Amino acid sequence: MSQLQTNWSFVSDGEETPDGFSFAGIAAGLKDSKKKDLALILAPEDSICSGLFTQSIVRASCIDISEQRIKKSSGLIRAILINSGQANACTGDFGIQHTLIATKEISKLLGINEEEVLMCSTGVIGIPIQIKNLIDNLPNLVKELKTNSLQNAAEAILTTDLVDKKITIETLIEGRKVKISGFAKGSGMIYPNMATMLAFLTCDVGVDKEEWDKMIAIAVKKSFNAISVDGETSTNDAFIGINSGKKVDKKFLSKIQSGIDMVCQSLAKSIARDGEGANCLLEVLVEGAKNNSNAIKMAKSICNSSLVKTAIHGCDPNWGRIISAAGNSGIKFKLNQVDLYIGNHQILEKGKLNQYDSQKVIDYMKSRMNGKYLIEDILRISINLNSGQSRGTAWGCDLSKKYVAINSEYTT
Amino acid sequence: MSQLQTNWSFVSDGEETPDGFSFAGIAAGLKDSKKKDLALILAPEDSICSGLFTQSIVRASCIDISEQRIKKSSGLIRAILINSGQANACTGDFGIQHTLIATKEISKLLGINEEEVLMCSTGVIGIPIQIKNLIDNLPNLVKELKTNSLQNAAEAILTTDLVDKKITIETLIEGRKVKISGFAKGSGMIYPNMATMLAFLTCDVGVDKEEWDKMIAIAVKKSFNAISVDGETSTNDAFIGINSGKKVDKKFLSKIQSGIDMVCQSLAKSIARDGEGANCLLEVLVEGAKNNSNAIKMAKSICNSSLVKTAIHGCDPNWGRIISAAGNSGIKFKLNQVDLYIGNHQILEKGKLNQYDSQKVIDYMKSRMNGKYLIEDILRISINLNSGQSRGTAWGCDLSKKYVAINSEYTT
Repeated sequence: MSQLQTNWSFVSDGEETPDGFSFAGIAAGLKDSKKKDLALILAPEDSICSGLFTQSIVRASCIDISEQRIKKSSGLIRAILINSGQANACTGDFGIQHTLIATKEISKLLGINEEEVLMCSTGVIGIPIQIKNLIDNLPNLVKELKTNSLQNAAEAILTTDLVDKKITIETLIEGRKVKISGFAKGSGMIYPNMATMLAFLTCDVGVDKEEWDKMIAIAVKKSFNAISVDGETSTNDAFIGINSGKKVDKKFLSKIQSGIDMVCQSLAKSIARDGEGANCLLEVLVEGAKNNSNAIKMAKSICNSSLVKTAIHGCDPNWGRIISAAGNSGIKFKLNQVDLYIGNHQILEKGKLNQYDSQKVIDYMKSRMNGKYLIEDILRISINLNSGQSRGTAWGCDLSKKYVAINSEYTT
Repeated sequence: MSQLQTNWSFVSDGEETPDGFSFAGIAAGLKDSKKKDLALILAPEDSICSGLFTQSIVRASCIDISEQRIKKSSGLIRAILINSGQANACTGDFGIQHTLIATKEISKLLGINEEEVLMCSTGVIGIPIQIKNLIDNLPNLVKELKTNSLQNAAEAILTTDLVDKKITIETLIEGRKVKISGFAKGSGMIYPNMATMLAFLTCDVGVDKEEWDKMIAIAVKKSFNAISVDGETSTNDAFIGINSGKKVDKKFLSKIQSGIDMVCQSLAKSIARDGEGANCLLEVLVEGAKNNSNAIKMAKSICNSSLVKTAIHGCDPNWGRIISAAGNSGIKFKLNQVDLYIGNHQILEKGKLNQYDSQKVIDYMKSRMNGKYLIEDILRISINLNSGQSRGTAWGCDLSKKYVAINSEYTT
């Protein structure tokens, strides 16, 4: 366990997860690869759930049904069934049918109401879920439920992600050890259909629905909504957070919020770092903005620019593209106020070119590439607009030929 | 001359341009390549000008100055000076100084007021214009002004465009031959800084300022604002349209509009076709929409999706990505109403998969690739939302490894 500034500590893999929650992940024959493809989260009674779903007009049926169930039950949700292999989007009537059948069957096995079950899917779109394999394997899935099976669940939701993405942190509040776990999948696909992001968070501190919704929204804005791999939104994107357990004094809610933020940012960064064909994690910090939303919007605009992303890939300190992307964000600023840094190298000072050693900046950029999954793979760009007190960060990755290859050469 | 449906005919290169206008294009030593890099358009007295400029917050000084001069003079503009090589953006005080010096010098040579001169620049940003070379070559530029020098002007504004982009059309109105000429440059750069789009249109039918502004706005919306190469907006994007000459009966204005639309769409398509690393021109038609703006917005969203663009590049009839990009456009539609075609092959009928021969669709897509600059290089996608009477088209191109190479391997 390593100590964090916010007094939250990392819990090693396979040790503990939030009290009362159990997890499972198995291979149910949905993926041709025979890898794990079916996951389950079981939450304690009286759990409170909050969910944020894709803004796309074209949504998988499981998304609509999950959103409705959270709303109808005021967040009283007990289980989440997640499959990879098929996204179950654009599958016509099968979409609703298969979601209803799967959630009904699992609810029987768990002895809960089917309305208390959510479902998320990821994989190829336009192809119905392999529903027989899924249903046949549900008893086995339930049998595998364990408190320390987060790893299995995290593996079962992946598609072409190169690594699993999960984190558990803990702290002491009022003498009690409390824990938050999260796991996610990012953009990457066996078949080049969709860049679905799924993420799940569990927490063993009880928080009221209204408060929890706010806390989850705050965390998602600063994490999953601040990353970009290729600017695509999927039919199946979902983030679901569940809490359950003894409540704490209200004064500790900010500490809980910092833990949720930490879990979400850690998962979001893992997703950006694992972007298709990516060689580095791009972190853009915008400071001195009028408000936090403006800062994040500009940081995202920079992370999302193809011209910035290709320049990063080429280790080209192309500040013109960075400023241009900032200019396209829609956020007003004065160029003659702007300080711009790549790493610790100041490129612009109040909008004017600083005397910097171009080769040193290139060397810094090069040192960040190909260091994937190392601590030193974060390529930092920071901008100070010097026109306010607010800041915001966004994450992305470089745009490589490999991205084009992954998305053009594997034909469905 | 070939006859068009709208009764406008193409005029062959180097024959005629709109009455009263003259053009020039020379090499002034602004580009290292020694290619042409300085252009001039001289319009007759009492010409009426309308301009549309980049929406980016970070704009080159020449853009600000040109916009102000059009406004201040109510569109009474006589000349446009255009340089390639340096964009003169993010160059601090040099930006304004060099624009003012250049426009003042050319106004003296032309015997007009400096406030009647506009300036546009394209090229590397952050580097001042090679102002001495530019000024020294202005007398030579003026000497080269000819009515049939459209070709030279069109060449002089290019950066890494692979081909020049120009068109002249003519028709008879009230027994008089009237002409519209246009030329443009698209995305492509010697140094990977910016994807600037510049386009200029001249017309020898007199149209009042208020009416002309409207006509130009309509044409640009359906052409330059409906193309996407990589979703980037430059510091220097500009479209300027000038008319001059005898007025015609109001009932012929719709004919003039169709001519302006034709010139703008022809140039816009040339820009998309010449996108960096592009192998085909992607044309997306959205029909059955509630209104024209919605249709164009959805068509653009599809043209701008990295996942669609890479699928096109791989000749993968990945309808899931197309529908997903439509879903991300923000335009509401019902999937179970949607017909989707790739070429003439119907993929979806009322949202359901049609029985189509996948290999034939792939063959169609392959036949469109590598046919750049041939008539048969247009890869068509059409969607009917079946929820209204409006339609709109957008243009783009595939996303190739070459795009990444162009934008990452040439280091400034």
